Amino acid sequence: MRDQFPQSTIVVEKVDEQEAWARQPVGASHLRPGGTVSGPTMMAVADTAAYIVVLSHIGIVPLAVTSNLNINFLRKPEAGKALLAKGTPLHLGRRSVLTEVNIYSEGQLEKPVAHAVVTYAIPSSRRR
Amino acid sequence: MRDQFPQSTIVVEKVDEQEAWARQPVGASHLRPGGTVSGPTMMAVADTAAYIVVLSHIGIVPLAVTSNLNINFLRKPEAGKALLAKGTPLHLGRRSVLTEVNIYSEGQLEKPVAHAVVTYAIPSSRRR
Amino acid sequence: MRDQFPQSTIVVEKVDEQEAWARQPVGASHLRPGGTVSGPTMMAVADTAAYIVVLSHIGIVPLAVTSNLNINFLRKPEAGKALLAKGTPLHLGRRSVLTEVNIYSEGQLEKPVAHAVVTYAIPSSRRR
Amino acid sequence: MRDQFPQSTIVVEKVDEQEAWARQPVGASHLRPGGTVSGPTMMAVADTAAYIVVLSHIGIVPLAVTSNLNINFLRKPEAGKALLAKGTPLHLGRRSVLTEVNIYSEGQLEKPVAHAVVTYAIPSSRRR
Repeated sequence: MRDQFPQSTIVVEKVDEQEAWARQPVGASHLRPGGTVSGPTMMAVADTAAYIVVLSHIGIVPLAVTSNLNINFLRKPEAGKALLAKGTPLHLGRRSVLTEVNIYSEGQLEKPVAHAVVTYAIPSSRRR
Repeated sequence: MRDQFPQSTIVVEKVDEQEAWARQPVGASHLRPGGTVSGPTMMAVADTAAYIVVLSHIGIVPLAVTSNLNINFLRKPEAGKALLAKGTPLHLGRRSVLTEVNIYSEGQLEKPVAHAVVTYAIPSSRRR
Repeated sequence: MRDQFPQSTIVVEKVDEQEAWARQPVGASHLRPGGTVSGPTMMAVADTAAYIVVLSHIGIVPLAVTSNLNINFLRKPEAGKALLAKGTPLHLGRRSVLTEVNIYSEGQLEKPVAHAVVTYAIPSSRRR
Repeated sequence: MRDQFPQSTIVVEKVDEQEAWARQPVGASHLRPGGTVSGPTMMAVADTAAYIVVLSHIGIVPLAVTSNLNINFLRKPEAGKALLAKGTPLHLGRRSVLTEVNIYSEGQLEKPVAHAVVTYAIPSSRRR
């Protein structure tokens, strides 16, 4: 993450075969009117959690790219809390990887603030 | 935009009844490996173009929030060019507004780099 | 189901607080070229599983309607096997219910053939 | 359509480079409670319109399969009217074709009842 996305402040919290966790500290630049975290901040952390899932399964392939992302926003995240995104692989295909991502306000892991489904396309050279 | 999202560098280019255009100048912080514009940058400009469509139809309602965003990434944007996003309303409902957004690299308006469909929920107090 | 959708051959297999299962027997009318089950058959069973989740949580409200459905097709279902769809509520909101649906070929519950996320809008009169 | 989907009552109305029209006559089996056309009927005609777009661009390839479908339901179709679906290609890629589909009640082409975005995967042997 530091090499490829030096400008990002998202941190990889944990990765294993079953899931990947990403954490986005929330600062003033992530807020929106109404004192809540902006949609683009949530989309970025969803995309990153999915990317970590992809890399953890196919190896460090910088050219894997998102082909589709669908996100539902469920409730307001708390303005003062970091976002945590948990990515779970739904399908590890030859041409693409489908990942489910649940996003939470830190400290409230029982109620996701958003839910995303993300497809990454795998470059031909790295297909399994 | 300047009032509500002071940290954003997205500029409203044009708004009328039929469409809204947003422009995202592209700098180093928007790039990703492979020398192209990052997915989150495209998602942010898509969300903003949809927000402009919503506000232009229901008035300046800071509490309108995205409820669903679906985006397909079609081709690599050019690293050195700004992104332009054109939002077109598909459905102006009482409870929600559905907007289609085509995203382009500036200077190449014949081939979108991404296509999004965005739903904004309208707060009860502002329903028409 | 029998009352409201007499033409459907989908059967409710099981419903509780956590999940709802629907089963679609597969006959000649559900197949498509290549000897597999058609996409529309899978979309119908996904929509039905989500509908059962909705009704099991808000009561028998015939006017609840799908507002958004996003489905990813993951692998070919087997032509000779029934489809099973498991609906799990992701968010039970006042205005809408979001449900995740995994679809399987009967007998192969470890590998979903499709994954859907379905939003139902709740009519105002039945909001909680 | 008659060869590959003999059970379908959907008719191809028109196809050219820019768009494809499919028509679904509506009978008792397509209705749902509230006297309107069912969601699965609309999803089936959306998928078919996208399939026609795909075949009209890559040739008669029976093994092209839907990989993702996202649909937003906008208003109630009229129970007594056929559905018309207009498919428009958004992106003709080597590995996939993305199509936008607007669905209408016949005679009311100014207000779509639903809007879908459909991705078809192209089998390797027929890639251009």
